[in-house]
Amino acid sequence: MRLPLTLAATSLIAIAMPAAAQQADRTQINRIIDEGTNQSEVVMTAQHLMDVIGPRLTNSPGMRKAEGWTQDKFRTWGLKNIHKEGFDFGRGWQIMSSSVRMVTPRPIQLTAIPIAWTPATNGAISGPVIVAPISAERHFDKWRGQLRGKIVMISLPTQGSEPNEAPFERLSGDDIAKLDQFRQPRYDPEAADRRVKRLDFAKKLDAFLKAEGAIAYATQSYRDGKLVHGEGYMFAVGDTPAIPGVQIAAEDYRRLARLAKMGPAPTLEINSDVRFDDSDTQAYNIFAEIPGTDPKAGYVMAGAHLDSWVAGDGASDNGAGTVMVMEAARILAKMGVRPKRTIRFALWAGEEQGLLGSLDYVEKNLATRGPGGNRQTGLARYMGWSNRWPVTAQPGYENLAAYFNIDNGSGKLRGLYAENNPAVVPIFREWLSPFAGMGAKDVVIGRTGGTDHVFMQAVGIPGYQFIQDPLDYDSRVHHSSIDTFDHMKADDLRQGSIVLAGMLLQSANAEKPLPRMLPQQPKVTDPFNYTDPDEDR
Amino acid sequence: MRLPLTLAATSLIAIAMPAAAQQADRTQINRIIDEGTNQSEVVMTAQHLMDVIGPRLTNSPGMRKAEGWTQDKFRTWGLKNIHKEGFDFGRGWQIMSSSVRMVTPRPIQLTAIPIAWTPATNGAISGPVIVAPISAERHFDKWRGQLRGKIVMISLPTQGSEPNEAPFERLSGDDIAKLDQFRQPRYDPEAADRRVKRLDFAKKLDAFLKAEGAIAYATQSYRDGKLVHGEGYMFAVGDTPAIPGVQIAAEDYRRLARLAKMGPAPTLEINSDVRFDDSDTQAYNIFAEIPGTDPKAGYVMAGAHLDSWVAGDGASDNGAGTVMVMEAARILAKMGVRPKRTIRFALWAGEEQGLLGSLDYVEKNLATRGPGGNRQTGLARYMGWSNRWPVTAQPGYENLAAYFNIDNGSGKLRGLYAENNPAVVPIFREWLSPFAGMGAKDVVIGRTGGTDHVFMQAVGIPGYQFIQDPLDYDSRVHHSSIDTFDHMKADDLRQGSIVLAGMLLQSANAEKPLPRMLPQQPKVTDPFNYTDPDEDR
Repeated sequence: MRLPLTLAATSLIAIAMPAAAQQADRTQINRIIDEGTNQSEVVMTAQHLMDVIGPRLTNSPGMRKAEGWTQDKFRTWGLKNIHKEGFDFGRGWQIMSSSVRMVTPRPIQLTAIPIAWTPATNGAISGPVIVAPISAERHFDKWRGQLRGKIVMISLPTQGSEPNEAPFERLSGDDIAKLDQFRQPRYDPEAADRRVKRLDFAKKLDAFLKAEGAIAYATQSYRDGKLVHGEGYMFAVGDTPAIPGVQIAAEDYRRLARLAKMGPAPTLEINSDVRFDDSDTQAYNIFAEIPGTDPKAGYVMAGAHLDSWVAGDGASDNGAGTVMVMEAARILAKMGVRPKRTIRFALWAGEEQGLLGSLDYVEKNLATRGPGGNRQTGLARYMGWSNRWPVTAQPGYENLAAYFNIDNGSGKLRGLYAENNPAVVPIFREWLSPFAGMGAKDVVIGRTGGTDHVFMQAVGIPGYQFIQDPLDYDSRVHHSSIDTFDHMKADDLRQGSIVLAGMLLQSANAEKPLPRMLPQQPKVTDPFNYTDPDEDR
Repeated sequence: MRLPLTLAATSLIAIAMPAAAQQADRTQINRIIDEGTNQSEVVMTAQHLMDVIGPRLTNSPGMRKAEGWTQDKFRTWGLKNIHKEGFDFGRGWQIMSSSVRMVTPRPIQLTAIPIAWTPATNGAISGPVIVAPISAERHFDKWRGQLRGKIVMISLPTQGSEPNEAPFERLSGDDIAKLDQFRQPRYDPEAADRRVKRLDFAKKLDAFLKAEGAIAYATQSYRDGKLVHGEGYMFAVGDTPAIPGVQIAAEDYRRLARLAKMGPAPTLEINSDVRFDDSDTQAYNIFAEIPGTDPKAGYVMAGAHLDSWVAGDGASDNGAGTVMVMEAARILAKMGVRPKRTIRFALWAGEEQGLLGSLDYVEKNLATRGPGGNRQTGLARYMGWSNRWPVTAQPGYENLAAYFNIDNGSGKLRGLYAENNPAVVPIFREWLSPFAGMGAKDVVIGRTGGTDHVFMQAVGIPGYQFIQDPLDYDSRVHHSSIDTFDHMKADDLRQGSIVLAGMLLQSANAEKPLPRMLPQQPKVTDPFNYTDPDEDR
């Protein structure tokens, strides 16, 4: 059916709970705090997920283990309706061992990581490097005929960074106040096209390198200080790159580039033992519930993506969100709460490849957008999805009363983004008030993007993200080889689990669902603006 | 002969140059600036030393190449009396390739580096880890009987850092003003003992691990963020450790330690292909000169250590100092200056193992300290050297009029430390005045230690260090795997070479040598203080 747009408009009012219900909830909150501090298990949960299971690239063996283990934990803790829901994704992939060495002019072990979903070298391969910065098809001609037998360094080498700011940060009141800014919506009709083109280019580049006889390619890591990230996007069956790719630490990449420029070109030896697993090309979202007492009241949901990148152990992105959601579930289950609405816990897959798990959930349970987009798979399914029209609600659209997403690192929760929805500000302030003393009190109007609440927001579901202390997420941890357990903070994980549990319980018991906003519409705000045709360089 | 102490006292007066000589020098300084900017070669020199030659652990193949190449460059540039002077050191050592992997509970390539001068594994070795923090002999009993077949993690694991300050820094005027503090001399008679004990302990630990059947040992890198350092001190012939050692990046070490604590202990596979070279156990200092016109006027000298650690390419420590000294030599030679005093350029070896190259120079050319100390070799030769008594001047003692050392990273020179010698302050201010506009103008009274001017100061030679912008030297570059060319700043290297050349020329032409201070005496300042007996833990 078509989305009843009037519903979104009429619910834009602040809703307070009856005083009696509120008082009952506040007593429950004291129990949440006790369970989340004195009886906390979140640090042990985190240690197992990050250290023992480790990175969880979607469909990798690590992610498969995590899919099973998280369901086992939910079962142990007494959650209900525990299950997984699959969607088409692509290949599993894992690094068994890898080595990149400079052999001439002198031996040196380089810091590098295979690019995700690139093939194995099948033993050591070696050859001279060539620095051939290629970022668009128009660059192919310059290098044609020069790449045979070479390891092609396709990134333009950068200079050493001068980090002038402290890498580790907690938010001051002033920092948070700056987030309290309504920003008018923007719609860039060409943005999706550019993203599709970029993916197409990756395939064309791979074909070009293969045709030219290159034996491998290398990129420069985008942070320096010997951090590597190893990202890659050709995960679909049939899209696997033809030649191995490695991402090399900036210091090592730049040294190679300088040596190559002065000549003779240095020689590398690459040995990547990586393994594909095509036994199941579906990715899986994991769900668990605390059933509600009123079958007509719908549900509230907390979510975090369980999948990670591969260079670290997926701790701050997004093991932290995962274990806070799991611990909130454990706390509420242990307390035996019987909320009015069902509380659903979701652990998404495929977030790092384009929010694919949460998008699948939206399409199956909330609303679809047309035309045509939903026939696409993989990354293409994500591109421009929020801009398609019309929006068609699914039968379960009305049921989801509130969605809370956690995906801003492992720092303490400091409050909530109202995501341009002024109607929720007083509600959130009220619900956060018991947690002011533990640092979570502010509600700001600002919007956030880039994670699993986005597609819910896009169809008018009230989906929110928490303000979190950034710690060293942006400066060094995010997607890097040091996204490990030891850069998480135990106190923050405990605090976040408590605050999330509190928000879930209050929203599950609230008299009315959270006020909705209109679905995102593909309207160009300033259609007279030109777009830089080279923006895809 | 005994040192004529009265000389030091009588020369404690400020000395100004005659106006004519000063004006001649100032015209020369304009030529230095032209040669050091428009015709600069320092960046190319640095690129070859760091990228092509790379790390220069004393007596390693890299250091041997550097010994030859630096002399060749001095020869090309027209320097005179180019030669090397050897002293007893120990074994050459080099990493050909290395790999440390966790095999169970899951495969992961760890970031690690063999500890210098530890033996090769001769192929892959593997075994479970045991976390056995051992930092003193009294800890041996606790682990006896538990180490057979194990890889012993001897460091106490730390927690993740929270870097609250900007890693990259240039000095403000206020920062420099804080350095302008006279600090009264301190003498700790037990400090040397403690250092000797620490070295003895390293040997006892190695013997213990061997006797207990451990197959390798591992330490935790002292910085986190995936930086490794790989230091080691058992370089003497006959002192080579019996079992291989690796330093593991903090994130990886901590993960292993947590897994081991939760059990079962993870298994590592270590493959270190390292090579010893005993073809020549002498280390060599490199010298070159611009001859003076007055054979009775003695000489001035600039020095920097050519040797480095092994984890990076020895760029900021101390490739930077090396290439600034080399470029100052090139500039002055190219200009064909004919100074009153000889200008000697020294590139030291063995600095990282205890200032051994410059110590050798002091003992052979300036003064010895007794009793007994000078019979010792290696590290023991350095321990407590400055506290021995009496000081006996060598015949060349009077000839060295001034020594300038560079070893504070690759940042711009901002001025000079007067090293507790107030008499030089006005002289240095005068000599620096042409360079104020390029950032080098301040003279502060503060003392510095830890590098090759120390033993000259200790016998009363006026030896000085430059104030330098720290950049990211302390925060991440010093001795680490990112001590590479790309973290140096070309403008700073050019500026430093110019300022050094200017200081050398002015001191070589100065009417009198720089005022001397008294030799360091072994007097306990506050003999009633107790020393913590556990300070050597």
